[in-house]
Amino acid sequence: MTAESAAAVASTRPVRFETLTPAPADGSTRARLGRLDTPHGAVETPMFMPVGTNATVKALDPDDLAEVGAQIILANTYHLYLRPGHERIARLGGLHRFMGWDRPILTDSGGFQVVSLGDLRVIDDDGATFRSHLDGSTHRFTPEHSIAVQEALGPDIAVAFDQPVPPHASTRAEVAEATARTLRWAERSLAAHDRPDQALFGIIQGGLEADLRADATRAIAAMAFDGLCIGGLAGDETSAQRAAALDVVVPILADDARPRYLMGLGSPLDMLDAVHRGVDLFDSVLPARIARNGTLWTPAGRLNMRNARFLDDPAPVQDDCPCRLCRHHSRAYLAHLFRADELLAYRLATCHNLTYCLDFMGRIRTAIAAGTLPDLVRDLTAGRAMQDPAPTPASDTQAGAKGG
Amino acid sequence: MTAESAAAVASTRPVRFETLTPAPADGSTRARLGRLDTPHGAVETPMFMPVGTNATVKALDPDDLAEVGAQIILANTYHLYLRPGHERIARLGGLHRFMGWDRPILTDSGGFQVVSLGDLRVIDDDGATFRSHLDGSTHRFTPEHSIAVQEALGPDIAVAFDQPVPPHASTRAEVAEATARTLRWAERSLAAHDRPDQALFGIIQGGLEADLRADATRAIAAMAFDGLCIGGLAGDETSAQRAAALDVVVPILADDARPRYLMGLGSPLDMLDAVHRGVDLFDSVLPARIARNGTLWTPAGRLNMRNARFLDDPAPVQDDCPCRLCRHHSRAYLAHLFRADELLAYRLATCHNLTYCLDFMGRIRTAIAAGTLPDLVRDLTAGRAMQDPAPTPASDTQAGAKGG
Repeated sequence: MTAESAAAVASTRPVRFETLTPAPADGSTRARLGRLDTPHGAVETPMFMPVGTNATVKALDPDDLAEVGAQIILANTYHLYLRPGHERIARLGGLHRFMGWDRPILTDSGGFQVVSLGDLRVIDDDGATFRSHLDGSTHRFTPEHSIAVQEALGPDIAVAFDQPVPPHASTRAEVAEATARTLRWAERSLAAHDRPDQALFGIIQGGLEADLRADATRAIAAMAFDGLCIGGLAGDETSAQRAAALDVVVPILADDARPRYLMGLGSPLDMLDAVHRGVDLFDSVLPARIARNGTLWTPAGRLNMRNARFLDDPAPVQDDCPCRLCRHHSRAYLAHLFRADELLAYRLATCHNLTYCLDFMGRIRTAIAAGTLPDLVRDLTAGRAMQDPAPTPASDTQAGAKGG
Repeated sequence: MTAESAAAVASTRPVRFETLTPAPADGSTRARLGRLDTPHGAVETPMFMPVGTNATVKALDPDDLAEVGAQIILANTYHLYLRPGHERIARLGGLHRFMGWDRPILTDSGGFQVVSLGDLRVIDDDGATFRSHLDGSTHRFTPEHSIAVQEALGPDIAVAFDQPVPPHASTRAEVAEATARTLRWAERSLAAHDRPDQALFGIIQGGLEADLRADATRAIAAMAFDGLCIGGLAGDETSAQRAAALDVVVPILADDARPRYLMGLGSPLDMLDAVHRGVDLFDSVLPARIARNGTLWTPAGRLNMRNARFLDDPAPVQDDCPCRLCRHHSRAYLAHLFRADELLAYRLATCHNLTYCLDFMGRIRTAIAAGTLPDLVRDLTAGRAMQDPAPTPASDTQAGAKGG
């Protein structure tokens, strides 16, 4: 749409995005600083959203989430539809009240989880029929139903129903088909959406095919969405492939005032690279999931708390970290809790990794404001091999049907 | 010992017990209000001690413990000896520092856990040889070794090594043998104990045999312990049998200035009855264990959160409860978390039951101070059938070798 019509739309929408520091004219980075205003408060961007699959970020309560610095969380439509049910949550006053979180929430559309069900689902032009991973019961999602579920759940931001296609699992024809279907479903999602206090984001698919990505970007951008999701990445593609896809999408959106959200990415250095290429929002189960497995992020690299050497280590996991784990406890204590399978291990480790991740995003925002983001990218990319020894498979970054 | 020699001992001991409101002369109750001063702060009595088997009260961190009102916790010597090891904890600065809890700690002696191992242990006059429930490795505890382990762990209060005998599992001859052995081990524990900043409590055994209980009470009371534990109860005995045992022990201690601690009891109404009969301290895994199973205590009775009717209940678990669960969340949310096996369920439910239990002890203390404890006993005992429909088996109240 034109800049004028976009501005007119923005003024009446429940969610508004303001660019505070635009990408510099010299092209040294496409990173930008922004603020997303929602009915439940403001979100600084770039920002990472912890994932609360079942209306809880695993092992944390809302006070923990505030303490780690979460400004917005993601909840999964597929899971909440199945259990406890969107209508039940609506009767109980909506998702914010249900989970006791009064800050912004975004729900995904369920598309990723439905597609991840593999043999348990059949997709046609009208929608997707699938069997519940919980009890095998049969369900059907259409764009209209996904929107109805999200309107019942009541997040600040809903997302259009899509058909993501894992890049390496699909032929070009399959990518083209899913991408075209996602565009038709985007129009139907928009037409179905009717909740005035809730924003709706559209999803750009296109796999790793540059021309399909570009076409999808232009088509989704032409629709009256409040924000633009970049889907079908954060999977098994290489960093270079992801960068190439972003370098197709973002330049097309250079003059678009809406936020850009790369779905499913959660590794700090991956996010830094994506911010550099113009992304504003992220989500992933990765920081919390690896925390529960005993892997903790620090500026010096990953620590595996199941390693016996930590049993005698009196130091905190990270010296200057403000999280509950590092303020109160030693590596030795955390290593003991993991060996004893104590529930507290999962909470403390999750608090740390989310604090690390959200502090890292804060550092990115500070660098953007200071005009030094390219320096940060250069400095940290040099140490990348140590911190990210191997690509993270898709199953580790996104909440599939089995949950976060 | 005489009152004079007891007073002389008390003035030099690391833990001091002061009776603030003595039991009334009219004999209407033996309940008394007291204060236990320890190197890590004061404990109001009567008091309940949450159990932190593996140096953590399951699912809670130290801030949670403070929030639920814990003034002192119990940790298990047997478990910490096996994992992560008492010498390791000593090297790391002791148990308080290790677990980040700077208030009072009491450790048990390991006797109960060793005996609970059944076929995995052999007891002789010198001590007990047992196999670890973790890896089958062979270990030996003697009174001297139990004390050495507890001195290394560094709680404010250690406990003499004993041989508890479950009342209904033993003949009178077996009870007599274990009780006599416990007396010999008490003397050896006292002789071995050498840590000046740590108190030592002795344990009175005797099963349900009134004469053996009475003899054991007089024998243990004659030794220079800082407090007196009543062991071998809170098992499968009836309430009447437990009351009878307490009515043997406490009158013998009527003029004894030391605190009385009934080991392993944790049901609120059971504790009320025991306070009425003169007990000052309690511990049990019960409130936390049943919480993790979805059973929550309220003044109106127990709620089983796995019951489907709670999935639609917007009310808090208990209207006037100050705990984190009741302040922020509905029964519906907690019921959902339990059905989804979410880790947060265990923490929130544990916070509630411990808050309930510790608030109940506060109510008991208020009643003692006001001289109305007999009224409280009468009022609450009338509703007992509803709240405690069945006796709680020993396996539910005490932390056996398998943990809390």
